[in-house]
Amino acid sequence: MSQNPLPTSDLKTLRQELQERTPLEVADELARLAPAERAKAFRLLAKDSALEVFQLLDAAHQEELLGGLRDEQVLRLVEEMDADDRARLFDEMPATVVRKLQAGLSPRERRLTAMLLGYPDESAGRIMSPKFIRLIPEMRVEDALARVRRRAQDAEPIYTLPVTDDELRLLGTITLRDLLLAEPENTVGEIMSGKTHAVSVDEDQEQVARIIQGADLLAVPVVDSENRLVGMVTVDDAMDVLGAETGEDLARTGASEPLGRPYFSASVFHLARSRAVWLLMLAVAATLTVNVLSAFEQTLEEVVVLALFIPLLIGTGGNAGAQSATTVVRSMALDDIRPEDILRVVLREARVGFLLGGVLAALSLIPVWLFAGESLAVIIALSLITVCTLASFVGSMMPLLARKVGVDPAVVSAPFVTTIVDASGLLVYFLIARAVLGL
Amino acid sequence: MSQNPLPTSDLKTLRQELQERTPLEVADELARLAPAERAKAFRLLAKDSALEVFQLLDAAHQEELLGGLRDEQVLRLVEEMDADDRARLFDEMPATVVRKLQAGLSPRERRLTAMLLGYPDESAGRIMSPKFIRLIPEMRVEDALARVRRRAQDAEPIYTLPVTDDELRLLGTITLRDLLLAEPENTVGEIMSGKTHAVSVDEDQEQVARIIQGADLLAVPVVDSENRLVGMVTVDDAMDVLGAETGEDLARTGASEPLGRPYFSASVFHLARSRAVWLLMLAVAATLTVNVLSAFEQTLEEVVVLALFIPLLIGTGGNAGAQSATTVVRSMALDDIRPEDILRVVLREARVGFLLGGVLAALSLIPVWLFAGESLAVIIALSLITVCTLASFVGSMMPLLARKVGVDPAVVSAPFVTTIVDASGLLVYFLIARAVLGL
Repeated sequence: MSQNPLPTSDLKTLRQELQERTPLEVADELARLAPAERAKAFRLLAKDSALEVFQLLDAAHQEELLGGLRDEQVLRLVEEMDADDRARLFDEMPATVVRKLQAGLSPRERRLTAMLLGYPDESAGRIMSPKFIRLIPEMRVEDALARVRRRAQDAEPIYTLPVTDDELRLLGTITLRDLLLAEPENTVGEIMSGKTHAVSVDEDQEQVARIIQGADLLAVPVVDSENRLVGMVTVDDAMDVLGAETGEDLARTGASEPLGRPYFSASVFHLARSRAVWLLMLAVAATLTVNVLSAFEQTLEEVVVLALFIPLLIGTGGNAGAQSATTVVRSMALDDIRPEDILRVVLREARVGFLLGGVLAALSLIPVWLFAGESLAVIIALSLITVCTLASFVGSMMPLLARKVGVDPAVVSAPFVTTIVDASGLLVYFLIARAVLGL
Repeated sequence: MSQNPLPTSDLKTLRQELQERTPLEVADELARLAPAERAKAFRLLAKDSALEVFQLLDAAHQEELLGGLRDEQVLRLVEEMDADDRARLFDEMPATVVRKLQAGLSPRERRLTAMLLGYPDESAGRIMSPKFIRLIPEMRVEDALARVRRRAQDAEPIYTLPVTDDELRLLGTITLRDLLLAEPENTVGEIMSGKTHAVSVDEDQEQVARIIQGADLLAVPVVDSENRLVGMVTVDDAMDVLGAETGEDLARTGASEPLGRPYFSASVFHLARSRAVWLLMLAVAATLTVNVLSAFEQTLEEVVVLALFIPLLIGTGGNAGAQSATTVVRSMALDDIRPEDILRVVLREARVGFLLGGVLAALSLIPVWLFAGESLAVIIALSLITVCTLASFVGSMMPLLARKVGVDPAVVSAPFVTTIVDASGLLVYFLIARAVLGL
């Protein structure tokens, strides 16, 4: 991708630069401009590339750009978008604006968009393309090819073609490659693949995307509850879904709600809001540590040196817990681990934690001895082993339990685990200290 | 995806179940079986589906399965794999086994695999398909279509076709859709798109995948240093690359090295090893906190209650730092933030941290006052504001600095930030405490 920013100060050079770049390069650079300059550059685009560039932009930027265009330009762009992209854009906009835009659409596009918006959030129905080319088994290959040619202009997926009966019930799929390779007098029914992937219109988008990725598909048919074909989800939408989902998992592992929009298009206030609830909840949970410590205030007064190792110990426990939690969340997302594996996973992770704690304990023994004496060395070593084992155990169990009760595992991953491990780690530390010191 | 495990105890039912499922469903279930049962089930697959299922498996499982098959079965599977998948498998295997397998390949496949393996790790050359169908601008559309039909059996990408001159220099691309829609007597040169995306054979795989995702492509041409076409990277490989890359980022945010293989195929020892170095390095970095605290040991002895808030305070700082770091790492991966934006980003994040710290400080004032008195309430409130601001500042700066010096930003994200913030947060806390208490 080109790394040179667009020269927005000089209109002539700007227009020329815009012509030389691919739509993706233009979209990338537009995303990095200030709103006023973005609008200026967008208006300089040729008609055809304006549509292409517009479709590659984030919904937040699309909405912003529409605000700066004349009504007929807005209507043309919105009319020519793919129905699923249009549904995503409408989702972002205020209801009054959406009603105005919908009124300006052609009846067919209005009907398709309304249909998509009628399906639940995060469902296959929201991202499917309702414009597909349907074949029937009795068709001859050459007629099927002629049909594809006639309809290719208007259909979104044409490389994977659904085969249905007269009542639109899905029978199988056929790829354009297979059609091209078949003898013209074969029928579609003879060469189609009947053992095909299909997803329900209510299916979770991430699940749909994983099927497309796992089976290396270009598109997957979407059916209603009576197995009737209603659309196709294409691989480009699957990639966007997976990108958004891993972005969400990553944000939550880092204790934030996902932004869902480009960084610079979010205000400082918006950024703070996406993090405030997490930070608050975690701080409230962390008051547990204050309680544990205040229960041991007297021990602390007698042996103040114990306080010196608190951050090291709970930090290490938190890291070990985060390691287990992150591994389990990711493996669940990839379907390598399922909720029914909980016992097997938790016991494995506890062994991993025990191993890691043992290594750290062995390495800490002599430095702590030299720094703070024999008893502290023993206390720290025993605490490291116990805390790491406990942390890996809790860290792997929490996301699996979350899934069992129907909560997104990423929500209870690293940050929550760390906080819980902090409090229980302190308890373990002070109990061991008391036992070793005979207090 | 089907959730029922395969009935491995009864061969007849097993064979029947295998026939009824799609290759992806079979591959998913195989991945969850123990090695012996996986081999048993795989041997029951019909010849054609065996190859399909094999290609959908993880390289670690592919290698394991090959060990249990007869030599001629192994050679047949390896010969029929796509060249890029084969290169990935060979990468996982011991050199002696690879030499034996390569010797058994047909000359053409051997040459293609050797070529791919000659390109650097993580480069476009490693994942490209060297079997493409090349068109030239002078070709008429109907001849081009006939050529696609003749070659489609053997080529991997056929829906995006590269157009070159006689010396293989890339001139543009054309989609099969455009070919089908064009008049038969048009030439390829008339309808091809000259402003096409192309990547260098040495380009980083993640960058290639982002182009395919960003521009909604099905395949992108790969060229050598003289702009000569050497292969095509397809969208299914791009999805796998993005999946692996985000998996790596996620693992590092959770303080581990990525596993790079299915969870249950990694031993407890392997899991511990992938985490030990991180845990150790972070523990060593955390000894900084011991040093800071020991410098304030006397203050601690005089006011033991200060110790009670240590975990809460540094935990909150760590979370605020992790939030900034994760946001920045993700936004850099999406190219929303670039290294040259460092000043703008760091100042924004510091303001976000100040806002968040202010909210927490306001909310903490009364509870801490009631629990530990007026001075502690002031100390904690001032410390929360300072620590959160500092944490967001450091958390956003570190990944950007890492990128500037050429290190993967994810490596220095959340866990490292947390540890650094811990030590500096303690320093701030005790300095504020001393000032407020007049010690």
